[in-house]
Amino acid sequence: MKRDRSENSVENTTDPKHSKIDNDDPLIPFIKDFEDIQKDIEQLDIKCAHEQMNIQKQYDEKKKPLFDKRDVIIQKVPCFWANTLRKHPALSDIVPEDIDILNHLTTVDLKDNMDNNGSYKITFTFNEKAKEYMEPLVLVKHVTFDNNQEKVVECTRIKWKEGKNPIAAVSNSRIDIDNEMPKWSVFEWFTTEELQDKPDLGEIIRREIWHNPLSYYLGLEDFDDFDEDFDDEDDEDEDDENEDEDEDDDEENEEDEDDEDGKDNDD
Amino acid sequence: MKRDRSENSVENTTDPKHSKIDNDDPLIPFIKDFEDIQKDIEQLDIKCAHEQMNIQKQYDEKKKPLFDKRDVIIQKVPCFWANTLRKHPALSDIVPEDIDILNHLTTVDLKDNMDNNGSYKITFTFNEKAKEYMEPLVLVKHVTFDNNQEKVVECTRIKWKEGKNPIAAVSNSRIDIDNEMPKWSVFEWFTTEELQDKPDLGEIIRREIWHNPLSYYLGLEDFDDFDEDFDDEDDEDEDDENEDEDEDDDEENEEDEDDEDGKDNDD
Repeated sequence: MKRDRSENSVENTTDPKHSKIDNDDPLIPFIKDFEDIQKDIEQLDIKCAHEQMNIQKQYDEKKKPLFDKRDVIIQKVPCFWANTLRKHPALSDIVPEDIDILNHLTTVDLKDNMDNNGSYKITFTFNEKAKEYMEPLVLVKHVTFDNNQEKVVECTRIKWKEGKNPIAAVSNSRIDIDNEMPKWSVFEWFTTEELQDKPDLGEIIRREIWHNPLSYYLGLEDFDDFDEDFDDEDDEDEDDENEDEDEDDDEENEEDEDDEDGKDNDD
Repeated sequence: MKRDRSENSVENTTDPKHSKIDNDDPLIPFIKDFEDIQKDIEQLDIKCAHEQMNIQKQYDEKKKPLFDKRDVIIQKVPCFWANTLRKHPALSDIVPEDIDILNHLTTVDLKDNMDNNGSYKITFTFNEKAKEYMEPLVLVKHVTFDNNQEKVVECTRIKWKEGKNPIAAVSNSRIDIDNEMPKWSVFEWFTTEELQDKPDLGEIIRREIWHNPLSYYLGLEDFDDFDEDFDDEDDEDEDDENEDEDEDDDEENEEDEDDEDGKDNDD
């Protein structure tokens, strides 16, 4: 080791990007080459993500007829979506006023991966009976992502009938201090504003409910499992969701190919 | 609407899976068809994930020479890995004893996506000077995932020299109540046991540091950004990491293809 890096940083005059390291940092002579390599790696990552997204879109097309077939069944089951949504753990504390309206929700539609950034559009279609509560009967929210920043490019403005706005019920139940769980309304999601401390209905539908609404309807999803899924520690599991689903062709024979000396096998 | 579902559930005798819904639930006649559709959707998801993983592996191969080239530079910069690791926000509170040892860490190697479940192997190689602290000089941990359950299939057992175990320093600093940040040692990660309330060094390296160690070394990564990344609310951003990287070819022209009536455009 030639030298230890000082904890004191002085400003490097050549490039503001390097301002947090010393002028005589041993990396300085190699920084341009290092950056070029990182750029090449990033370019390959972008190409890889692009190809993966194209495959995703192909499969989204293949799944479309299945979702249509599924919807034919759902149309035959009264209150299917109300009874599915309210069984998701993150939606278990919605105000009761929501359920009255959701009982008239006949169709939930998701258009996912509308661009390479994971943009999506969710459409809620209600039957005529919902006119008692609100108009229009078709609610749409279209969310795009740019540099991981969410942007709502389209959102239906709900016109509530007098005294029928469930978001007013939310305000009342939030004032109730004895109420441990803060109540909220799924209709609060239909906003162009950023959601503050509220579950993101769109992400819940798109990442969880949409894949298997039946399991929620049947109450087969374990609340304990979901509590874990919302923990930080399980981020990696969620990241791998797409890759992992019951794939059993574990290439474990690769494991010992590049063994190094000096280690124990603690299997 | 024909009927409202009762809140009372009785056991359905035909299939234990349906035990949480009523015997006369309106879904019962359609449940088999619904399940079949869900199975078909799941099969397509598995195939899709498999194809995406194959692409990932192709790009991992393409990136390998770049990582090798990067390592040639890193070898020329004393204490590169010590000065990179300690600048990750999750590693900022490691015990100072760790840094003394990490100053002798010459090579970090990651083999990622070793199977379709996202298994990985990390190898730390130290120079001879590290013998003052421990043996062996090559530490390996190989983690596999099965049904999202992490399993350590290989982990080097470190033999610490007398009085040189940094994990002992951790225990001391944890007793220190004035110390707000709980100190920990990166070497605690080299265990076959489950990590309790400790940052997962493997995931931090594999998902963050490995992609751009230079930005950590240079101190360009904003601590505030990282605090957000560790929040639940940003899960979706992390999920999309692979898909999103600076892809600007937003297919926004798709947006209006399937507009419905009765909505405002709140752009």
